[in-house]
Amino acid sequence: MIDGLEAAITRAGRGDGAEVMRFPPGLSRTQFERSDYMRTFPHFAGTVHCFCGGDREHREVLRCIETGEDWTGQQEASDIVLTPAACYPVYPVIAARGPVPEAGTLVDVMSYCFRHEPSSEPTRLQMFRMREYVCIGAPGQVLAFRADWLKRGQTLIRSLALPHAVDVANDPFFGRAGKVMANSQRELELKFELLVPVNSAENPTACISFNYHVDHFGRASDIKLLDGGVAHTACIGFGLERLTMALLRHHGLDIQAWPDAVQMVLWP
Amino acid sequence: MIDGLEAAITRAGRGDGAEVMRFPPGLSRTQFERSDYMRTFPHFAGTVHCFCGGDREHREVLRCIETGEDWTGQQEASDIVLTPAACYPVYPVIAARGPVPEAGTLVDVMSYCFRHEPSSEPTRLQMFRMREYVCIGAPGQVLAFRADWLKRGQTLIRSLALPHAVDVANDPFFGRAGKVMANSQRELELKFELLVPVNSAENPTACISFNYHVDHFGRASDIKLLDGGVAHTACIGFGLERLTMALLRHHGLDIQAWPDAVQMVLWP
Repeated sequence: MIDGLEAAITRAGRGDGAEVMRFPPGLSRTQFERSDYMRTFPHFAGTVHCFCGGDREHREVLRCIETGEDWTGQQEASDIVLTPAACYPVYPVIAARGPVPEAGTLVDVMSYCFRHEPSSEPTRLQMFRMREYVCIGAPGQVLAFRADWLKRGQTLIRSLALPHAVDVANDPFFGRAGKVMANSQRELELKFELLVPVNSAENPTACISFNYHVDHFGRASDIKLLDGGVAHTACIGFGLERLTMALLRHHGLDIQAWPDAVQMVLWP
Repeated sequence: MIDGLEAAITRAGRGDGAEVMRFPPGLSRTQFERSDYMRTFPHFAGTVHCFCGGDREHREVLRCIETGEDWTGQQEASDIVLTPAACYPVYPVIAARGPVPEAGTLVDVMSYCFRHEPSSEPTRLQMFRMREYVCIGAPGQVLAFRADWLKRGQTLIRSLALPHAVDVANDPFFGRAGKVMANSQRELELKFELLVPVNSAENPTACISFNYHVDHFGRASDIKLLDGGVAHTACIGFGLERLTMALLRHHGLDIQAWPDAVQMVLWP
């Protein structure tokens, strides 16, 4: 199902000439710090820690595991942070190439992502796959890209025969300051979501998001336009597990009984 | 290249009826502890840690990041440990099904893996993709599976026109006790590697490994045979990035100039 969804997303973007990039599910701590993620979503981040001791410290770890005590106290932070959204490793790569060309830059990326939101709700996994198209360029370019994909995203979901609606949305920013950020994000219409009922009709699940980051990643990674201005960015994110669950919810667990038209989109 | 390698590995195993399983790049800490990985390879493991504080603790994290101080001291261990080898999440799934059927169980798995061995050597990545075939059953079954794949692995590498040799090997066990384990592993011929020169002819790179775990994972995950005995396991692991680097090293960076026969294997 995920393979079929990925192929359908590829076809929906075919002809745009997006550069395909694939990264491991982690990025360097320095890059992560520059993205300012800890300011807005500290509660979601996953840092990778390692054992750096010798034989004596090792014996203590094993003793703790045997007696059921916490053995992770000795773990030290490594240089790796888990990727919070598929597009994070893209921006430093683009920045390193120098100014963005006149026509803008388009990237196709997919990665496992991590978000520390333990929940028994199946649409809220801690590790999940996110496919993205990312546009980097002048404000007008990235806004046109997002407007175009708002239509394409709905066309794709319609071809999968899923009930859906598009709505303005906000990210779950952390803490008291986060409330202000969320309100501002909604007011400026920086984020739209394509919602499909999965758990319930009252609380439909965001399966595609359409995000305009203004100059956040341009500033964080120092991505310049040819005229010296800061690049703006936008991304379209497809939640592959959520789309899979939406398909199973609406078309049933017997894939061979799915509508022919839907099967033809996923497995042409 | 990775897609082509994966398809070729799939074809090499076609007809065996292996069950395809795909997991996220992490497993639960409880499962990880049961695998006894911290006894043998504590230095490679990556535990995932998260921020669990409130607004006050958040301000302290941001202050540390701004002043360049270590901000990870507040991170607390989550329930997730990064997958150290692709087959680790397979064993608990198989155990939960009850006794292994008469014919044994065969699984096809692929995952990003993490090993904390920072190195400037490109064949020694911290995050890399490992494809595996895993056999679970009676000792004779899993040994026959491994013997069969020792031949198939060489046939595959020959079809990719890569120079290679097979040799007995050992895992890089930790500490003083590790030396004894490594010697015993070699003496009992529990691990073979298919080596291809990538960095040098003197120190060729293990691109495929052929591992007999005896009853290690059977005991750790409590996998039983129909007669009540403990299941034995073996796995064949393909290092996808290492195989890619071997291809680039021997056939050059211009893929269209690669031997036609090799291109036909990867992109038939």
